[in-house]
Amino acid sequence: MQIFNNVKQAQDWCKSQKSSGKTIGLVPTMGYLHAGHLSLVRMARQKCDIVIVSIFVNPMQFGQGEDLDKYPCDLKRDTELLENEKVDAVFAPLVRDMYPEGYSTFVQVQGEITDKLCGASRPGHFQGVTTVVSKLFLICQPDKAFFGQKDAQQAVIIEKMVRELNFPLTIVRGPIIREADGLAMSSRNVNLSEEQRKQALILNQALLAAKKEIMAGQRDTEILKQGMRKMIASQPEAQIDYIEIYQADELKDIKEIVGGKIIMALAVKFGNTRLIDNLTVEV
Amino acid sequence: MQIFNNVKQAQDWCKSQKSSGKTIGLVPTMGYLHAGHLSLVRMARQKCDIVIVSIFVNPMQFGQGEDLDKYPCDLKRDTELLENEKVDAVFAPLVRDMYPEGYSTFVQVQGEITDKLCGASRPGHFQGVTTVVSKLFLICQPDKAFFGQKDAQQAVIIEKMVRELNFPLTIVRGPIIREADGLAMSSRNVNLSEEQRKQALILNQALLAAKKEIMAGQRDTEILKQGMRKMIASQPEAQIDYIEIYQADELKDIKEIVGGKIIMALAVKFGNTRLIDNLTVEV
Repeated sequence: MQIFNNVKQAQDWCKSQKSSGKTIGLVPTMGYLHAGHLSLVRMARQKCDIVIVSIFVNPMQFGQGEDLDKYPCDLKRDTELLENEKVDAVFAPLVRDMYPEGYSTFVQVQGEITDKLCGASRPGHFQGVTTVVSKLFLICQPDKAFFGQKDAQQAVIIEKMVRELNFPLTIVRGPIIREADGLAMSSRNVNLSEEQRKQALILNQALLAAKKEIMAGQRDTEILKQGMRKMIASQPEAQIDYIEIYQADELKDIKEIVGGKIIMALAVKFGNTRLIDNLTVEV
Repeated sequence: MQIFNNVKQAQDWCKSQKSSGKTIGLVPTMGYLHAGHLSLVRMARQKCDIVIVSIFVNPMQFGQGEDLDKYPCDLKRDTELLENEKVDAVFAPLVRDMYPEGYSTFVQVQGEITDKLCGASRPGHFQGVTTVVSKLFLICQPDKAFFGQKDAQQAVIIEKMVRELNFPLTIVRGPIIREADGLAMSSRNVNLSEEQRKQALILNQALLAAKKEIMAGQRDTEILKQGMRKMIASQPEAQIDYIEIYQADELKDIKEIVGGKIIMALAVKFGNTRLIDNLTVEV
């Protein structure tokens, strides 16, 4: 398995793989890999000749006062996991190589889609995401890039960016992977206390309860959100950031569920750890 | 010669050329081609296996009240000229194909480099340029892309964008091509009256006079700019937008010329037609 820390070396290597006719699958990550990441890696392994996994905790997508400094990191363990998955290359660049002094080029998806949900709670976050993902696409030149459904808004925004800037690649979304007790896998889970970890189970439970309501005929999104809010607020350490229900494809507001695919998405803090989760329902 | 109006067709064709091992040279233009464009096409023809010329009057880089509606256009003549130059493909997309309804993805080089000169006179102009050029790069996937030195600031900004976003390509700059009497070639020259056309000769003359001053030892940029301003203001229809002298590589301000490569750049309106010109001097 190749390990690249240098942008140019990674780009040259990808270019040579490509020109020998191989298809490239890219799995962009911030490292501290869990089963969710590995499920994307396996999808890439099945669909592409060459699999490259990027590991880069991107400072540009963290706001002031966010958990950039506390974001967990274990490159040795990550590379061992990826070696086991028969990944061809790991790209783990240095910050100063990705953003040299005087760096000032940004890619931005503007409008409602980036202003709501995590975009409202984390101003500038998605500009950081779309900029770094554009750079990763241009360095690694993937035919397919793999993103997890847990970051549903991120996936929608990146799909829009790919379509609108005409990136010559396909985005493949992988499903949310959960612990046996239902907690969505996240690198941030390691920052939860034992008690917070227990309380955080309410997120998936609230989403499942709302789904049951919908299946039983409830169509009023306000009532559904209130139900979830009440369940989550029952946990003493839970501080709700948002609980929303949108049409799933473009995250458009809906007051009443009339049909099609909807997404219920939430962000909740337990202490200093902000968790997100979501569930899509086909009505 | 292939002619593509459709983004996907152009992209598929370029992809297939690339995967057969050929190098691609892209010359992005807004059409109404003149000898300046053709000199870039010939450079591309020499350096690349496949030459593709894009013709697209990009609405995103025109501001309110600018000359989008008056920008000259003659696709038939353009394609004939390009056929003569043995160009392989022309890409002349429709606006609605480049910017479908709801389009909201932008590429932006921020900071001093885009805020001065044409960036100050034409707010939003360079965001339109960097966005459309990114799209053209992603559609045509060139190994080399060719830009004229007449749009010197544009070239510096695009080079910065390519470097910072890690586009896997090289920018090649072609020199300014001038009419026999010294007027810099521009598609907009056709909009000048006969009298304005005559008066516009002062632009190149002023630049040459300033160069002579520098060669004779003048180092004070304020004095040099005043000299050019005076010459240009002598023409009754000339309305000066800017006259500036910068260090050439990154367009940094200089008060006194100490050495290296400097650029003298100006923008002047004659009636409704805004012309730009520049001259670099190695001191």
